[in-house]
Amino acid sequence: MEKKTQIFGLRAVIEAINSGESIDKVFLQKGLRGELFNELEGLLNSNSINISYVPVEKLNRLTKNNHQGVVANISPIEFHDLDSLVLNTIESGETPLFLLLDQINDVRNFGAIIRTAECTGVHGIIIQKKGGAPVNGDTVKTSAGAVFRVPICKVDHIKDAMFHLQSCGIKVIAATEKTNNSIYDVSFKEPCAIIMGSEDRGISPSILKLVDDKAKLLLLGDIESLNVSVACGVFLYEAIRQRL
Amino acid sequence: MEKKTQIFGLRAVIEAINSGESIDKVFLQKGLRGELFNELEGLLNSNSINISYVPVEKLNRLTKNNHQGVVANISPIEFHDLDSLVLNTIESGETPLFLLLDQINDVRNFGAIIRTAECTGVHGIIIQKKGGAPVNGDTVKTSAGAVFRVPICKVDHIKDAMFHLQSCGIKVIAATEKTNNSIYDVSFKEPCAIIMGSEDRGISPSILKLVDDKAKLLLLGDIESLNVSVACGVFLYEAIRQRL
Repeated sequence: MEKKTQIFGLRAVIEAINSGESIDKVFLQKGLRGELFNELEGLLNSNSINISYVPVEKLNRLTKNNHQGVVANISPIEFHDLDSLVLNTIESGETPLFLLLDQINDVRNFGAIIRTAECTGVHGIIIQKKGGAPVNGDTVKTSAGAVFRVPICKVDHIKDAMFHLQSCGIKVIAATEKTNNSIYDVSFKEPCAIIMGSEDRGISPSILKLVDDKAKLLLLGDIESLNVSVACGVFLYEAIRQRL
Repeated sequence: MEKKTQIFGLRAVIEAINSGESIDKVFLQKGLRGELFNELEGLLNSNSINISYVPVEKLNRLTKNNHQGVVANISPIEFHDLDSLVLNTIESGETPLFLLLDQINDVRNFGAIIRTAECTGVHGIIIQKKGGAPVNGDTVKTSAGAVFRVPICKVDHIKDAMFHLQSCGIKVIAATEKTNNSIYDVSFKEPCAIIMGSEDRGISPSILKLVDDKAKLLLLGDIESLNVSVACGVFLYEAIRQRL
């Protein structure tokens, strides 16, 4: 089910990017310089691909081959184009339900969220190109394979995706404690996208300013938040319940 | 917040058990024999304490001290007595909400479930002495400390706990796909206990026969189940919603 997950070597990685391969993350040797290296670095930046600068020992552990200071992880999936996905969803006649992830860092949380999204019929998951957990073999495993079944879109900035969704009549609802609205007071019956924030910081304040609505889960104990994949499950199932 | 997590040596572990210390799991050296060793083994079995028989190298990795072929992990928490907990909950005037776990194996799932239980005001979590994820440092971490705030009871058999809850007027509802009842068709308004099954096998068939009600989550995709900690969150929040 999975395809090749790693490529290495300066020219090979440059070629892969130019041919539109879904690259998830690139490990570059710290301190390396040279014309080809600079070309690759520029290409990675202009394509908003995650870069990690590492010691050569790390690269040697990643591959036994002659890596020339660069190892790239290929995504096991092809990413979808947001515009077409939104259009197709609207044309299908179903009520759109999207999920926006603002920097989920833990691959197990990310996998569990994808799995729940598949189970609740989410039309697409939107993540940002930089930051956030990778789409890799662990994601495949922790999502129970759901990563192959739910369309995932990678965008430069979550805000761009929000504006696009809003312009298509899809309201963006933030899962956040920073509101008085309980999840049961907010309507998920209309076309909507739910946005979940990162494990440590929640949704970025600049994104929170732009949402159409906010909803929180009741917390009856002393702990101030739920695990993000659990919270996401409760939100998605509340949408399902309201739409029944 | 945590106390000593490990003890070793034949007499020390025997003493700890006899003095009522909460022992989570004991590692015994494979093939070891002797009077004191047999006494310890008998004591572990009569107290339904998890035993793992391991090579001496594993014990040497667990401790640098003279372990005499035995290392015991102490639970970071004191377990509650089920009878008193149920009685106190009923006397408090609140509507009892308990959670029964039939062999959750993954410590991260276990921790996330404890965290959700704390956030939803669950009165107690009931686990079985043998099998299932341990209550250890990882549980503390993945529960975000909730393990210190939600009462946890360890019973010899989950069935005993079910009979006791049922005899106190608390109905036991199974979270299972093996039913036609959706979670929204089942009432959680009365005193109840929700039982969740293991990641791989779900709830044991012999336990499923004894429950008062069964409820399933709608699955709109092709994947046949959710992550157990996500499913548990959706069940507990449905109980909260109905009780509002």
